[in-house]
Amino acid sequence: MAVEAEADADDGAEGITASVVGGSGFTGGELLRLLASHPTLEIAEVTSRSKAGKSVGSVHPPLRGADLRFTEPDDLESVDVLFAATPHGVSMGQIDDFFDVADTVVDLSADFRLETEAQYDEWYDGHDAPEYLEKAEYALPEINRENLAGAELIAGGGCNATASILGLYPLFEHGILDGGEQIVVDVKVGSSEGGAGGGEASSHPERSGVVRPYAPTGHRHEAEIEQFLGTSVAFTCHAVDMIRGASATSHVFPSGPVSKGELWKAYRGCYEDEPFVRMAAGGSGVYRYPEPKAVAGTNYAEVGFELDPSNERIVVFSAIDNMMKGSAGQAVHAANIALGLEETAGLEFAGLHPVGAP
Amino acid sequence: MAVEAEADADDGAEGITASVVGGSGFTGGELLRLLASHPTLEIAEVTSRSKAGKSVGSVHPPLRGADLRFTEPDDLESVDVLFAATPHGVSMGQIDDFFDVADTVVDLSADFRLETEAQYDEWYDGHDAPEYLEKAEYALPEINRENLAGAELIAGGGCNATASILGLYPLFEHGILDGGEQIVVDVKVGSSEGGAGGGEASSHPERSGVVRPYAPTGHRHEAEIEQFLGTSVAFTCHAVDMIRGASATSHVFPSGPVSKGELWKAYRGCYEDEPFVRMAAGGSGVYRYPEPKAVAGTNYAEVGFELDPSNERIVVFSAIDNMMKGSAGQAVHAANIALGLEETAGLEFAGLHPVGAP
Amino acid sequence: MAVEAEADADDGAEGITASVVGGSGFTGGELLRLLASHPTLEIAEVTSRSKAGKSVGSVHPPLRGADLRFTEPDDLESVDVLFAATPHGVSMGQIDDFFDVADTVVDLSADFRLETEAQYDEWYDGHDAPEYLEKAEYALPEINRENLAGAELIAGGGCNATASILGLYPLFEHGILDGGEQIVVDVKVGSSEGGAGGGEASSHPERSGVVRPYAPTGHRHEAEIEQFLGTSVAFTCHAVDMIRGASATSHVFPSGPVSKGELWKAYRGCYEDEPFVRMAAGGSGVYRYPEPKAVAGTNYAEVGFELDPSNERIVVFSAIDNMMKGSAGQAVHAANIALGLEETAGLEFAGLHPVGAP
Amino acid sequence: MAVEAEADADDGAEGITASVVGGSGFTGGELLRLLASHPTLEIAEVTSRSKAGKSVGSVHPPLRGADLRFTEPDDLESVDVLFAATPHGVSMGQIDDFFDVADTVVDLSADFRLETEAQYDEWYDGHDAPEYLEKAEYALPEINRENLAGAELIAGGGCNATASILGLYPLFEHGILDGGEQIVVDVKVGSSEGGAGGGEASSHPERSGVVRPYAPTGHRHEAEIEQFLGTSVAFTCHAVDMIRGASATSHVFPSGPVSKGELWKAYRGCYEDEPFVRMAAGGSGVYRYPEPKAVAGTNYAEVGFELDPSNERIVVFSAIDNMMKGSAGQAVHAANIALGLEETAGLEFAGLHPVGAP
Repeated sequence: MAVEAEADADDGAEGITASVVGGSGFTGGELLRLLASHPTLEIAEVTSRSKAGKSVGSVHPPLRGADLRFTEPDDLESVDVLFAATPHGVSMGQIDDFFDVADTVVDLSADFRLETEAQYDEWYDGHDAPEYLEKAEYALPEINRENLAGAELIAGGGCNATASILGLYPLFEHGILDGGEQIVVDVKVGSSEGGAGGGEASSHPERSGVVRPYAPTGHRHEAEIEQFLGTSVAFTCHAVDMIRGASATSHVFPSGPVSKGELWKAYRGCYEDEPFVRMAAGGSGVYRYPEPKAVAGTNYAEVGFELDPSNERIVVFSAIDNMMKGSAGQAVHAANIALGLEETAGLEFAGLHPVGAP
Repeated sequence: MAVEAEADADDGAEGITASVVGGSGFTGGELLRLLASHPTLEIAEVTSRSKAGKSVGSVHPPLRGADLRFTEPDDLESVDVLFAATPHGVSMGQIDDFFDVADTVVDLSADFRLETEAQYDEWYDGHDAPEYLEKAEYALPEINRENLAGAELIAGGGCNATASILGLYPLFEHGILDGGEQIVVDVKVGSSEGGAGGGEASSHPERSGVVRPYAPTGHRHEAEIEQFLGTSVAFTCHAVDMIRGASATSHVFPSGPVSKGELWKAYRGCYEDEPFVRMAAGGSGVYRYPEPKAVAGTNYAEVGFELDPSNERIVVFSAIDNMMKGSAGQAVHAANIALGLEETAGLEFAGLHPVGAP
Repeated sequence: MAVEAEADADDGAEGITASVVGGSGFTGGELLRLLASHPTLEIAEVTSRSKAGKSVGSVHPPLRGADLRFTEPDDLESVDVLFAATPHGVSMGQIDDFFDVADTVVDLSADFRLETEAQYDEWYDGHDAPEYLEKAEYALPEINRENLAGAELIAGGGCNATASILGLYPLFEHGILDGGEQIVVDVKVGSSEGGAGGGEASSHPERSGVVRPYAPTGHRHEAEIEQFLGTSVAFTCHAVDMIRGASATSHVFPSGPVSKGELWKAYRGCYEDEPFVRMAAGGSGVYRYPEPKAVAGTNYAEVGFELDPSNERIVVFSAIDNMMKGSAGQAVHAANIALGLEETAGLEFAGLHPVGAP
Repeated sequence: MAVEAEADADDGAEGITASVVGGSGFTGGELLRLLASHPTLEIAEVTSRSKAGKSVGSVHPPLRGADLRFTEPDDLESVDVLFAATPHGVSMGQIDDFFDVADTVVDLSADFRLETEAQYDEWYDGHDAPEYLEKAEYALPEINRENLAGAELIAGGGCNATASILGLYPLFEHGILDGGEQIVVDVKVGSSEGGAGGGEASSHPERSGVVRPYAPTGHRHEAEIEQFLGTSVAFTCHAVDMIRGASATSHVFPSGPVSKGELWKAYRGCYEDEPFVRMAAGGSGVYRYPEPKAVAGTNYAEVGFELDPSNERIVVFSAIDNMMKGSAGQAVHAANIALGLEETAGLEFAGLHPVGAP
């Protein structure tokens, strides 16, 4: 059976122990998949109230070979780093317990993404542990790498926000936009964003082949985008027929004319040294522009753009795997930086072709 | 076998004869499917150079029961109405021949959609028969019904343009927009838009699960939208994983504040008497907003909207089946009007649930 | 809006009233879709305990234009024919109530498919109203037409059983098989078979792209197949990625050699006068063999075969839309016969191309 | 950009050089993907007549970060191992040239899978280099490991044959079958099996949602199965809607009764020490039986079974990724053994969840 292969993947020399709270969901499973083949991090404990006692492999096929069972979340053992993959609102209530057992906590929910209690009052149902908000570091290395080194509390970014920010950030960083411009962000996402379990709307017969508007206005990820870009965007999200993937098309109207050269300079300037950002802007072949298909299962983001002379518009395309760069992969990337490990450790998988998103 | 059932569907009393030029493609097949069950129109001839001699049912399964074979397109017999489902650029070269054999010609290509030769010079490769342009009537009844009665040359609208125009038209008709405003139209379309035959990019392994930008700027359908709305729009198209369907999300920024009541008044005013437009704006259930799934295989368009206070933005959603309301269905609807038949004749199919777009 | 079009479809001259018990599920919705455009049958009442008071169109998009609401199932009004689309086990408990309000009852569940109480004891959890079993007529006209005329209780066939029986029946009818032979039936079905609502296994992320064995042995539909063919078959079912459709591949090992001519004679003999069976056995084009895609949304079954000299094996392919020929369409077809209406009334839709099953 | 990450993956210490002939197709791309992250093998050259000069990443997104271009296949440089991913019939004509530049040749086509020229005369169009047939070793380690060590010519197995053999092999190895029994193998495969480029039947609109019989009888993979199991099987293949994956359901009728315990003993005996075979036979959760979804993108095979008392039938399920265990992964696995490397080197990827096959 596959035990040997998995075992090979597991035994890191100077192991750093990691536990996952809420390991039965999709992002929890993705974290476990990454940790199971991480060269340094070692899985200590995986909790799930609903699946306690069950083999992790019975829920997450990629872990079938691993000798791991879900445990009750009530008494956590001490570890080096704790990953929380619990629903929004849970971590803020348990954050003290998390720090009782770990020096480093990485939370994949929305509970520590925003900087102020006021934002949680506006966009969510308030916050139970506002004193932690300023301690938290946003997990996206491309815009926050320097603050992640040694961070104790890391807040994973939202998948749609991550795709949108990666697409727009260079325009602000290089002064092509300064915040007053009109920006429309039209996002298309896969069904894994809905999480495991489902419900009528996400059942296969109702969910297959859709182009379904959801949260057409007032999507909570607007708050993150605004926080990091310093401007509001007109944001609308659509569910489409893929499992993994988030694709953001940003329609940007700069105040003055801009050239392709300036755009290339801005994007290269921000991303040419980034290990997990690929540019795809025109060129030849089937995959000329960013596509979720091309990054499915990977921690890569693809970013590209076109210029629309007739409308003095910049169209920016950015694509990620919502479960990887948009969640678990981003979390491991940030943890690697926080813990002083090789940034790309455990995240080198370059994807599959052909693949169906995936 | 199914011959009887088909026969039943075919024998109209006072038959009006119709031929289809270019019947082996997807829109040609869709036309034949509609004509085969039309209460009045009777199929006379179906041409296809590549499939001449073959049974129509061997190419289009819905016509397996019909006793029909493709013929060479060279010498057409006289009929009452001729439908041309040929690639762009073909009809403009054969339009005289078409009128030699039919009093009424319905062209599904782009050859007669635009009003002036100048537009064809700008958006296409010029025009071979500009003298026909002013004679042509745009097929979309919701904006051009009065001119379709008795029309001799009918120009089918583009699928993406049709979806976009149906979504935005009421805002202009009721003075909520006057042409100066910023409008972004972000379209998602299915693979049938690529037509039969395919190629590498539309092969199943490469095309499944995509969110693929194509013609991200400068899409030719912009010209139609501009022609009928009197304003330019920032238009971008994406291929997504469905076969039939075009969904247009229009992000509109009116100059002043607008209320939901005003929007309802505008849309109801334009569409409540339209036989093929359904409103879907909020409400309950899985299908709260327009979805290609909900109209797949039908001639219905669904239109809906949401208001975004934080951005003084109107988000308009419109969904059609690109092969029906966006092509063959629209053509038959327009022909029904031109010939003085019941508008909805042959187009009553209300769709399937559940269905996968489809 | 679409009300007019629907209305046209509704007003039959000499209306026969029909009610649907359990109208919020997939097969209930399919029945309503067919009844809404049926030339003679008129919808009287649609019950659903969970959706009572809601508009039928909010659950089933094809009925958006119809003015219909779900009612409580407790006090049914008298009608000519009552269709029951309730889960297995419900109808057998309410059958007396059904006959109190209707002279003709068509049950789409498994409750009256089998002939003896002993079969229900073996394959189900017994039967509450065994006295009705001999009164019930199996709905599949191709094998039971003569008994359906004037039938009072009609039992809809199982979708997998229907596909399997239609494929194998001619071999028995024409003496190519006599019951002792080895028969393997390998079925592939779509997600609509799971019904509305779903659950973890049928959520889009878990259900998309599967080839998933279910009930690999001991499937209850074996009982129906055995009942009508007079022999047991080795039956296994797989879930695949489509919404509508059931495809049965039967691997048959006749005791002696058989020729293609004999096979054609057997299949033509059984089906050439059948309005809803199409033969597809080789030939040219993409759709050479039966495919669920080619019959999606229709009441047609496609049947075909190949001969395997090296194994003295007959491979029989049969494909249906599980919700139409496999359920609601078969029920309406049988009701048409029972009520002395045109057999094909309301069932002429010939399908779509291209379409995605669907 | 991603160059660094890729580079890390590439620089093995004691590099063994490998070239790929025919690198622009799907299996060629899969080989390159595996070689790019292989700890020991280093890519020397990638040929493609049609794409010569183009960047490999422009065709295969997973290789976007790699600095690799396609070269003309005419003058190959000397390497340690040469992989041929050319269409059937090509390698047999160039095999001498291949050995001129490499000591070890791994051919992924059918050209060296069968043992005798007579088999090629029967199943293919004869053979151009029959003298190489007895030198070739079949690449499937589970049945041929001992012969692969030091092999000079390795013949990759067919994907459908690999799935079928892995499912049935333990029944023969442990004497549950001896060759006289009736065996039906019903296979379901994904669209990547058709290779890149496509054509009408594999275009997205025609290929999506299918359950399409192809080569319903006389499939060439029957020859391989017969060669290694020593018995003929009744084999039929169906195309279903997935991109990667081959699932074989084998319906087996043993001469006498067999117990579940005997079956477990047979399968455990063959596979419990195999690094790339997972058992999935019942149990709990969504993935109780083998599924292509669960192994998509990996080199794992899943095998399971059920016992059908009523038919004295064993139903065996086996699932692989046709491009990995069924082609490129199997080839690298065999090459690892032939070259004395760690068997699992470069093949540890354990898959994704959720994923859409993929």
